[in-house]
Amino acid sequence: MDRHFDEELTQLKQKLLHMGDTSQEMIGLAVKSLVERKDAYAKEVFNLEERVNHMEVEIEEEVLKLLALRQPAARDLRLLTAILKINNDLERVADQAVNISEVAVYLLKEPLLKPLIDIPKMATLAQRMIKNSLDAFVNHDADLAKEVCHDDDEVDQINDQIFRELLTYMMEDPKAITRAVDLILVSRNLERIADHATNISEDVIFIEQGKNIKHHIQD
Amino acid sequence: MDRHFDEELTQLKQKLLHMGDTSQEMIGLAVKSLVERKDAYAKEVFNLEERVNHMEVEIEEEVLKLLALRQPAARDLRLLTAILKINNDLERVADQAVNISEVAVYLLKEPLLKPLIDIPKMATLAQRMIKNSLDAFVNHDADLAKEVCHDDDEVDQINDQIFRELLTYMMEDPKAITRAVDLILVSRNLERIADHATNISEDVIFIEQGKNIKHHIQD
Repeated sequence: MDRHFDEELTQLKQKLLHMGDTSQEMIGLAVKSLVERKDAYAKEVFNLEERVNHMEVEIEEEVLKLLALRQPAARDLRLLTAILKINNDLERVADQAVNISEVAVYLLKEPLLKPLIDIPKMATLAQRMIKNSLDAFVNHDADLAKEVCHDDDEVDQINDQIFRELLTYMMEDPKAITRAVDLILVSRNLERIADHATNISEDVIFIEQGKNIKHHIQD
Repeated sequence: MDRHFDEELTQLKQKLLHMGDTSQEMIGLAVKSLVERKDAYAKEVFNLEERVNHMEVEIEEEVLKLLALRQPAARDLRLLTAILKINNDLERVADQAVNISEVAVYLLKEPLLKPLIDIPKMATLAQRMIKNSLDAFVNHDADLAKEVCHDDDEVDQINDQIFRELLTYMMEDPKAITRAVDLILVSRNLERIADHATNISEDVIFIEQGKNIKHHIQD
């Protein structure tokens, strides 16, 4: 392989990892803002969003440039198109963190409904899934990617659990409804973040095994 | 341009349009199932999902094949990578229709909470946005794409309205809570479909104007 192209790819992967780190940081800050009831963390998320948006545009433009200039074949081509998709997923992860932060800012004006336990647990899991999916990508680790797809089941379970618990709060006290619905939406945002990690992992398996496993992983 | 490549691109666009039609049909059936309280429509959505999943894999593989064989430059390259992304968006639209259908199947077992008026309105708007975004893509119509981005504001407004209305139902009657939360989730699914149409439209503007307007459209 052309050594120069090799370097360009490595740099691009580094940028993608950096974007992944920032997205993970945003998830952490958004949930911290909810749990510790401080809107400073949420505001940090809004600032980071702009950085992620710039990174997305930059990565997309570099991929297009490499596709045009280097005209890569087979495996490298697959790699570049995967970067394009992962880039898109990470930007949406950042969007979900922004959604959570918006809810946090609103909830901070209301009395605390309940101490949050499952939501931070779900956030930690979602962050790990994003991290693992990107590690799987740069290290060509299809096994780690499969692990992410399985973690998604645990996220779905926590999501159901949160939903059922919050329903009981709403049933008991109509004044709790708005806040409970907001927490259900936060839980859905986290579930969606986990879905993006799953998408990325499916792309990794596609690259590493040369076949499209999307819509085939059932368990 | 190579005439053969031109034909291949045209065929690929046709496939994408067909996938778009199927996704729109799924949105229509899912909401019809909710409104008319018939689970046969929801089941049709589950069947169509498989078709959409196949289409996605097929389109993705054809794009990769064309990228490798034809090594297109500049504008065609941008077109192919856009198809890759639009393909991804349409598959997620279909997923949202499946989510709505799952809620529908559950709600059919419960008594009717209220006649649905805003949800079908929102669905029609979301369908139109998907249709317009794809028309904008194949007809190189940046103005139509911008229209889609603006329609998204209306969807957000209806979404807020639905949320506030359903809150009042929950406040009045705790027995209504589960069903109301489910309808809120349907409304979020439709909002997300509109977001995908907006993504597609942003890609179209990118191709047609050669610049990335993502994260710049504010109104």
